[in-house]
Amino acid sequence: MSNGLLKGKKGIIFGALNDQSIAWKVAERAHEEGAQIVLTNAPIAMRMGEINALGEKTGAPIIPADATSVDDLNNLITKSMEHFGGKIDFILHSIGMSVNVRKGRHYTDQNYEFTMKGIDVSALSFHKVLQCAMKQDAMNDWGSILALSYIAAQRVFPDYNDMADNKSYLESIARSFGYHYGVAKKYA
Amino acid sequence: MSNGLLKGKKGIIFGALNDQSIAWKVAERAHEEGAQIVLTNAPIAMRMGEINALGEKTGAPIIPADATSVDDLNNLITKSMEHFGGKIDFILHSIGMSVNVRKGRHYTDQNYEFTMKGIDVSALSFHKVLQCAMKQDAMNDWGSILALSYIAAQRVFPDYNDMADNKSYLESIARSFGYHYGVAKKYA
Amino acid sequence: MSNGLLKGKKGIIFGALNDQSIAWKVAERAHEEGAQIVLTNAPIAMRMGEINALGEKTGAPIIPADATSVDDLNNLITKSMEHFGGKIDFILHSIGMSVNVRKGRHYTDQNYEFTMKGIDVSALSFHKVLQCAMKQDAMNDWGSILALSYIAAQRVFPDYNDMADNKSYLESIARSFGYHYGVAKKYA
Amino acid sequence: MSNGLLKGKKGIIFGALNDQSIAWKVAERAHEEGAQIVLTNAPIAMRMGEINALGEKTGAPIIPADATSVDDLNNLITKSMEHFGGKIDFILHSIGMSVNVRKGRHYTDQNYEFTMKGIDVSALSFHKVLQCAMKQDAMNDWGSILALSYIAAQRVFPDYNDMADNKSYLESIARSFGYHYGVAKKYA
Repeated sequence: MSNGLLKGKKGIIFGALNDQSIAWKVAERAHEEGAQIVLTNAPIAMRMGEINALGEKTGAPIIPADATSVDDLNNLITKSMEHFGGKIDFILHSIGMSVNVRKGRHYTDQNYEFTMKGIDVSALSFHKVLQCAMKQDAMNDWGSILALSYIAAQRVFPDYNDMADNKSYLESIARSFGYHYGVAKKYA
Repeated sequence: MSNGLLKGKKGIIFGALNDQSIAWKVAERAHEEGAQIVLTNAPIAMRMGEINALGEKTGAPIIPADATSVDDLNNLITKSMEHFGGKIDFILHSIGMSVNVRKGRHYTDQNYEFTMKGIDVSALSFHKVLQCAMKQDAMNDWGSILALSYIAAQRVFPDYNDMADNKSYLESIARSFGYHYGVAKKYA
Repeated sequence: MSNGLLKGKKGIIFGALNDQSIAWKVAERAHEEGAQIVLTNAPIAMRMGEINALGEKTGAPIIPADATSVDDLNNLITKSMEHFGGKIDFILHSIGMSVNVRKGRHYTDQNYEFTMKGIDVSALSFHKVLQCAMKQDAMNDWGSILALSYIAAQRVFPDYNDMADNKSYLESIARSFGYHYGVAKKYA
Repeated sequence: MSNGLLKGKKGIIFGALNDQSIAWKVAERAHEEGAQIVLTNAPIAMRMGEINALGEKTGAPIIPADATSVDDLNNLITKSMEHFGGKIDFILHSIGMSVNVRKGRHYTDQNYEFTMKGIDVSALSFHKVLQCAMKQDAMNDWGSILALSYIAAQRVFPDYNDMADNKSYLESIARSFGYHYGVAKKYA
């Protein structure tokens, strides 16, 4: 069912790995509601995933980008604007990964290289997306840049491991960058 | 003025650089109230600082430790317990540093290597202190491990730059590790 | 512009006094999106207001109700279900009033009869709406009952006077009654 | 054990009903730490309680006051200052009561007269204490006025019934009145 809510809107969606991904469902619905989208994911995640099927279903090009790489993000944004023939209305950052979780490390027995990798992928990548978008002045007025958080950012959910800390950092970026981006656009 | 509130208590205090440091004032007062303390700081910070004078004033040995180094932290805790002849009652983590701030980078123009360094020094170091203390079972019952935060962890304070995000991560560690440490001690 | 988002939905809207009211704008948009609505306000407010024009514009009957009166609220809900020929999908509680504010009393110089009146109108009325709706089993599955709050419920906004306290109470009702209503519907 | 922490301090303690009351324990400890105190409670609560024993133990006069009565509160504060021979350093508001709870009414089946009585006793009384103290300029510099809250003020605790809403209102008073009182004292 479509209500045409996103007719004419253009957006980038990060993180659609397979049809269990939140990003996957968002992409389907955004397409149904009339949006044009670009799909992106880390090259390694794309090799595991089924993103091509989603690209065909939604008429979306797929532009790989490692979300921890400023170069990749700049390329993604530039190429997306070329594809859209203009600026961007929305970006969905639906990315998160903890190596400690993957390797079965308890929260009180972290490997800190794993922890740093998780911060970079899960949280700092959101700052990088925002900073690249702002520097390229890539967003249309009234556009949105959205990340996905979890209540563990604010309360104790023991099983969420170091993703809780990553989400706290992510939410702080949303607050801080949101302020600065808003001020910059207002007086631009 | 002393009320003997910390008589017999033993603690480690991080971060006394000079008499403008919160940690410095805490060390003086803890000593006045009867606590035995160990002072610590990063080797490089100690070269700049006047911590020896504080050590003499408070009768405290100084054990250098880079708070981002698990080896240094383990050594600090081991040596402190040897000095005290027993476990530890309190640890004060009074540490924070942003390279982006030092280098005058705006929040929307971060150098991400600087950012990562700041996360490690300002936030992840607190997890490391907790994890090392827990693994060595270094804390007495009813002991406290305390870090210093700032309201920018929860609301926008634009001038606090990436320290806001670091403090959010730090507060999340306090919540999460506090839960796990409490559960572990309860059933130990 | 309509996207048909509320096609087939039926709702009660409290608090449309004139075209400066949030409730007024919501009523217009809900009607445009296909909802059937019932308008209500306190009899005294209706005498001052222009709600008849809104009723004509949105095809909505107007059923007066003093939101502090359980009898009036029960009558409103019963009559609304008769009008709709079934249960209700949404209720908007857009009501608030402080006698202390109206009379120019400072927050630190309250007349407590005024304060109690404000609590009843601004906050407790929301509990009454919820309790009446629940007892009559008036809501469709997936229905919504919404009140309007303000950030002063959670932080200090000195000029908001005792409305800040009223909104805190209102938000607490939303949390508590939401829990109980959800549990009751789940096992109904 | 005493550390003399409250030597020379003078305070009013509300709500010591029996030795299970938080206020009772606070009174004992405040006395041990050197404070002079005045005890108060509602006349009806005092008939049920054992407050005289506490008064003897702590050398405290007992001045009855219904905390919902501005007259009673003004009398209490005036008499306390006469007793102390000067202003007051601390007031502990340790009061709360829900008639709905006492009568076994479920949160979704409130009697709203009961609810209003609970708001007045549990929450609004704190505003009245503050307003009376401020109007009489009864507090010493650096003095404290403290109320007891519960986490249910901020999250759902279903069994706490309408006391959750009362505590939300109480916390809001603390925020709002604290701001105004601080500003007034700063520029007094």
